[in-house]
Amino acid sequence: MRDVCVIGLGLIGGSVLRAAVSSGRTAWGATASTSDADAAVADGYDASTAVEDALRRAASREAVVVLAVPLTSLESVLSLVERHAPGCLLTDVTSVKAPVREAVRAVAPSVTFVGGHPMAGTAESGWRAATAELFESATWVTTVEPATDLAAWREVATLAVDLGARVVPLNAEVHDETVARVSHLPHLLAAVLATVGAAGGPVAAALAAGSFTDGTRVAGTRPALVRAMTEGNRTALLPVLDEALGALGAARGSLASTGGLASTVDAGHEASRRMAELRHAPTTGVRVRLSAPDAHEALLAIGNRGGYVTALDGDVAVAEVP
Amino acid sequence: MRDVCVIGLGLIGGSVLRAAVSSGRTAWGATASTSDADAAVADGYDASTAVEDALRRAASREAVVVLAVPLTSLESVLSLVERHAPGCLLTDVTSVKAPVREAVRAVAPSVTFVGGHPMAGTAESGWRAATAELFESATWVTTVEPATDLAAWREVATLAVDLGARVVPLNAEVHDETVARVSHLPHLLAAVLATVGAAGGPVAAALAAGSFTDGTRVAGTRPALVRAMTEGNRTALLPVLDEALGALGAARGSLASTGGLASTVDAGHEASRRMAELRHAPTTGVRVRLSAPDAHEALLAIGNRGGYVTALDGDVAVAEVP
Repeated sequence: MRDVCVIGLGLIGGSVLRAAVSSGRTAWGATASTSDADAAVADGYDASTAVEDALRRAASREAVVVLAVPLTSLESVLSLVERHAPGCLLTDVTSVKAPVREAVRAVAPSVTFVGGHPMAGTAESGWRAATAELFESATWVTTVEPATDLAAWREVATLAVDLGARVVPLNAEVHDETVARVSHLPHLLAAVLATVGAAGGPVAAALAAGSFTDGTRVAGTRPALVRAMTEGNRTALLPVLDEALGALGAARGSLASTGGLASTVDAGHEASRRMAELRHAPTTGVRVRLSAPDAHEALLAIGNRGGYVTALDGDVAVAEVP
Repeated sequence: MRDVCVIGLGLIGGSVLRAAVSSGRTAWGATASTSDADAAVADGYDASTAVEDALRRAASREAVVVLAVPLTSLESVLSLVERHAPGCLLTDVTSVKAPVREAVRAVAPSVTFVGGHPMAGTAESGWRAATAELFESATWVTTVEPATDLAAWREVATLAVDLGARVVPLNAEVHDETVARVSHLPHLLAAVLATVGAAGGPVAAALAAGSFTDGTRVAGTRPALVRAMTEGNRTALLPVLDEALGALGAARGSLASTGGLASTVDAGHEASRRMAELRHAPTTGVRVRLSAPDAHEALLAIGNRGGYVTALDGDVAVAEVP
């Protein structure tokens, strides 16, 4: 088991450090935030604000380096990685994957990179919100590209499994398009619904019931977090926004012209039924030998069919696939 | 306490009949649905498929007639009311108010009408889903227009209070615009989100988490019900749909041009905060004498400020207002 060096000790990075130590690994962290570093030290963790020292130690110990900094700080931290831990095994926990891959290529070309996105979170932020259990049964996307070193992928996937997660292998573009559909679009629709609802004033507040409360729940998320994930996924989000605008515009046109909303309502109901069916589909066990010549394709086939890796058994990824 | 005659014995009408009997009133029902009528009789209620007989009995007893039929059946039932119970005191439980008011004017001009909309429901439908407790603490909109007979309004409001509801006086247009904002738009956005999400296939199902589940929950509602309420509120819903399209289009434009989503996200967050604040605002007791010359305006002021009537005390409506 490799050591783990976590850069950034907020909710996700802090939870990685806690969970890595809980799983029996040697792990340390560094962050630009004095308050997060102090809180981590007070809780008994090996943490500091000395990011460069933490990276040099990672290089000498051949640790896995986990970048858990905001997307806006990524490039500056990557340049520190390239300087102080060249050639290291690097992963990240950022909510977009293609932009991070491009930044790594541009700023830290020497590292062996496998992108990651643990899909876990709470309304809270910072070290104080971090827990060792955050990733229990969570979905953790790990990127597989034609150039991905599967020995490195295995290390990152093993870390995610050790932290309690289900590992979904996807390429960066499929990841980014999918989170645009099921996470970033929901946040923007919730913001629009909250705005249009609140324009109805006190009467709207008095008449709002379940459909409004459900539809606007994530509008309460910290704006900085929502902006970071949606703006950071601009390329994938734009065509998804256009799909939504097209569907809503078609509803508007149909209501104005024929007075009917059957296609909008029926399509939504059928889609909702299909998603529930997919989520509850029975799964079958699948094993992928990582040294096989078609291992990249086999891993991507698991993720693309909605499956996930549950364990690494020597050279074999053990998965469940619907 | 007036007797109650309920036409239509589905979820809402059935619950009105059950709750009216529970509250100690003499009440009977009729419906075109043999299965609902049979089920109501089997449960010990005075019910049948003889709608005309039920209306004639209402006329002879000066009962309150409650129309609980789908909007699509409204005109044909109204013509039966005009023929068999002319001049009766009529209310309804339909989810739109201006179109019902116009239909009553056109088809049953002799009746004294006060529109109603109890905002309660479950995923189920039909008599079997009806309960005497459905309206406990529910919001029940009752319409107040310049021409509204406040003695009739008092009868309808008393019935709603007896059934456990909070009574919100509003004019039909404010009601229809507001439910377009907080109920009909949420249903259409949920349908659009479900459709765009499901287009992502099994990967979307695997990565969908809380924001998608919350945002699509009401997409599982029976399509016939969603179509009835949204299509029936066409006039009020179109401008609200345009507001939503405008806000989503502005987000799209901003993301494409500057890459920023600050105004969309910040506006949604602030709107969400404002709605929560309005919902939890402390209230003050207010009393309105229904025989006062400005009673119509005083009742509407209660509803327009997000308040509600909790009791009728002789000639006085007792209310709570934020």
